Amino acid sequence: MAKQKKAPRPKAQTPKGFRDYFGAEVTERAEMLKTIAGVYHQYGFDALESSAVETVEALGKFLPDVDRPNEGVFAWQDEDDAWMALRYDLTAPLARVYAQYRNDLPLPYRRYAMGPVWRNEKPGPGRYRQFYQCDADTVGAPSVAADAEICAMLSDTLERVGIPRGDYLVRVNNRKVLNGVLEAMGVSEEAQAADVLRTIDKFDKVGESGVRELLGKGRLDASGAYIDGVGLSDDQAEPVLAFLTSKGADAAKTLANLRDAIGGSTVGATGVDELETIATLLDAGGYGRDRIEIDPSVVRGLGYYTGPVFEAELTFEILDEKGRKRQFGSVSGGGRYDDLVKRFTGQEVPATGVSIGVDRLLAALREKGRIGSSVQGPVVVTVMDKSRMAEYQTMVAELRNAGIRAEVYLGNPKNFGNQLKYADKRQSPVAVIAGGDEFDAGKVQIKDLILGAKLAENASLEEWQDRPSQYEVARGDLVAKVREILDLYQ
Amino acid sequence: MAKQKKAPRPKAQTPKGFRDYFGAEVTERAEMLKTIAGVYHQYGFDALESSAVETVEALGKFLPDVDRPNEGVFAWQDEDDAWMALRYDLTAPLARVYAQYRNDLPLPYRRYAMGPVWRNEKPGPGRYRQFYQCDADTVGAPSVAADAEICAMLSDTLERVGIPRGDYLVRVNNRKVLNGVLEAMGVSEEAQAADVLRTIDKFDKVGESGVRELLGKGRLDASGAYIDGVGLSDDQAEPVLAFLTSKGADAAKTLANLRDAIGGSTVGATGVDELETIATLLDAGGYGRDRIEIDPSVVRGLGYYTGPVFEAELTFEILDEKGRKRQFGSVSGGGRYDDLVKRFTGQEVPATGVSIGVDRLLAALREKGRIGSSVQGPVVVTVMDKSRMAEYQTMVAELRNAGIRAEVYLGNPKNFGNQLKYADKRQSPVAVIAGGDEFDAGKVQIKDLILGAKLAENASLEEWQDRPSQYEVARGDLVAKVREILDLYQ
Repeated sequence: MAKQKKAPRPKAQTPKGFRDYFGAEVTERAEMLKTIAGVYHQYGFDALESSAVETVEALGKFLPDVDRPNEGVFAWQDEDDAWMALRYDLTAPLARVYAQYRNDLPLPYRRYAMGPVWRNEKPGPGRYRQFYQCDADTVGAPSVAADAEICAMLSDTLERVGIPRGDYLVRVNNRKVLNGVLEAMGVSEEAQAADVLRTIDKFDKVGESGVRELLGKGRLDASGAYIDGVGLSDDQAEPVLAFLTSKGADAAKTLANLRDAIGGSTVGATGVDELETIATLLDAGGYGRDRIEIDPSVVRGLGYYTGPVFEAELTFEILDEKGRKRQFGSVSGGGRYDDLVKRFTGQEVPATGVSIGVDRLLAALREKGRIGSSVQGPVVVTVMDKSRMAEYQTMVAELRNAGIRAEVYLGNPKNFGNQLKYADKRQSPVAVIAGGDEFDAGKVQIKDLILGAKLAENASLEEWQDRPSQYEVARGDLVAKVREILDLYQ
Repeated sequence: MAKQKKAPRPKAQTPKGFRDYFGAEVTERAEMLKTIAGVYHQYGFDALESSAVETVEALGKFLPDVDRPNEGVFAWQDEDDAWMALRYDLTAPLARVYAQYRNDLPLPYRRYAMGPVWRNEKPGPGRYRQFYQCDADTVGAPSVAADAEICAMLSDTLERVGIPRGDYLVRVNNRKVLNGVLEAMGVSEEAQAADVLRTIDKFDKVGESGVRELLGKGRLDASGAYIDGVGLSDDQAEPVLAFLTSKGADAAKTLANLRDAIGGSTVGATGVDELETIATLLDAGGYGRDRIEIDPSVVRGLGYYTGPVFEAELTFEILDEKGRKRQFGSVSGGGRYDDLVKRFTGQEVPATGVSIGVDRLLAALREKGRIGSSVQGPVVVTVMDKSRMAEYQTMVAELRNAGIRAEVYLGNPKNFGNQLKYADKRQSPVAVIAGGDEFDAGKVQIKDLILGAKLAENASLEEWQDRPSQYEVARGDLVAKVREILDLYQ
């Protein structure tokens, strides 16, 4: 014990790559999660909350082949030397849960899940090691009606949390179409297919001509470095470029272009048929091109998913850190993946789902001023006379019973200026003041802090006198007067 | 890659000591957390969400003196070899956050926090390694008005989540009074004081006579083992027994008994004065003995806290696993602890707070049938004709737009019986059925599944014919008819 006292003081520091969230940051997220859960629920999805901890074995992707698995996850050994880790997403736990409870769960199983996930990656600006995901998945439904439903739900969700129609777009593509294109190109070797996939993943950045160069001989990078190409001939590269640029004026035209691009490939035809079914279902549901569209230039996730792929983008522009205009970009992605449960049971189980990046979506809403503009602190009942604490508490109780957020000042009451500074720091709209004189007279002082601050900044002496920001009212009118002032600032 | 394919399949298993939560288990907890946050907010508390991960150094209690710290926390080393761990409560992170941001935070700082915490302990029945806590603390307020406020808030919270007055009691004690008692007993040596503390911690179990024996020569355990006593004389033990049994008919009587028990101790007098102030403040706020009372027999936490200590108990009886009646017991505890921030800054900062065991509170409400009785699944639109999927989706969209939870069946539609079995598993109140005949006639079948199930169980053939549970209505009346049936079961 004596030894410990000599130990240096610990640093009070958020661990590297993590964040603390205060006040409205927390409540606004909670509000958004509740809204999203409401939409998911209405679509028939059921909540699931698995533990934050999984066995590394069940997480799969990150099996420890060295002393300690530190590739992407936070992991440790338990008392039986088994490796445990924090989940890195909500899909891997769903696979484990579905395999474990499959005899008791309905089939198909629609579930939603929301919560933090952890990544043991190098943190960067806006990139944290813990962040929220909000997923919905349908397990055991082979029909692309399930995919269409997810797209419709995603569209509804974005509008429900406050992104108006026109400010977002859900774009849909299909991995099977790409597979058909590869077949049409005569690319059957796995390594070469992977090269093509890696190349089209750069389509967003380098555009059509860039992809053309990278599929062929190679390309001189913006940095001056030469990037080797895949080595396909121009003819061979043509179908994949036709695929990426096949978006037409409407779904029918896009689908026709895709049919051209896949040539005679069967899997490709299945893929185009699936996109057509999705388009038909969404159309019947009233989800037009202003909300959801078939867009073969969506390449993110094509390497991971096995069928339809979706991405939701916010289309309005924001200013980046250098003051340049750019689109806000992706806030959600998903698609169909058919070997979710196979690792555990050996049986292939079809699944499709979507993940919403809640923190990005919140950032977008804040950027547009749709949330976070009107944070209001509690009414502060100040303490002029320490011995009357019970009476101040009664005032606070009256305010709270009327549904007004209120508190009594609990610091050292000696310096009254500190109490008003405190109210200021708390962003309090109103302070209540009562000392001996007021108690004797059955009165109370009510100070409008918002008006007071405005006057202090701008007003001339005349205005100041004309528009008092402090009112003396009868003790019985406390709640009514506070309410009157609060209503001014709603 | 070829090697991995040969690896045995991973086990689909929740890690030992952890749990998965499904459906209503998740949503009922979310609802409760929202309600509690609402009360805390109204009392002027601000939300704080720190990360799940802290440095072991900041957590403090569990410094690694061996190769790996496994005493109570889940810990691992990061890339710089620093030990990191999952938080084991919400108070240690508050200490770190307050020390880190103290120049920016208001003083006093009222904050609430809710979320999972993790304990690396042996799991047992009902004891998990991850569980939810829901805390509110006031940092930087030396006055016991802050403690009284916490007690009032706890009482309000319990009633707001559905525990009626009379079914709970918030009991208040004070460590300083116990310190006064120890002084009166002449127990000044630290080791002996600790022995006394350990002994009175058994008061709940062994009662007055048991504590008397344990403070003296020792006691024969129920198991037949002899437990050594602290070795005090009967006279010496008297004040602590007087303390533990000092509860009188009202607060005034209890306080008088306590003044007797502490003899001439100054710290003891301060403690009794504090309890008196708390009683006065609560009384002024209308919190009578039916909600909050001074009760010196509360011993849990007296070893940990430095001033007032509170505990909320549910007073109604439940049947335990062996069918015996017992009180439900504690769902919340808290108190004042004055060296929260000192570890980091060297400065003593007074703090008081409370933690609600959300999972226990939920269990209590379920036990009393106050939540969880009426889980209702979605309306299921069945699929008779796969080619009409778009029309089924339209029906579902109409239902959802009317605020009704609904989904289309997305499994293989071939076997219609499976669709009804699915609806049953989903606890669906209504199934919608439409095949070629119905579409041609502009009709739709609506099946009341709740009535159907009841009839299937009990009804005679006549009743069955008299009370049909399936209705054919015009397609345009779909929503109205479904609503009509749902309203029967609200």
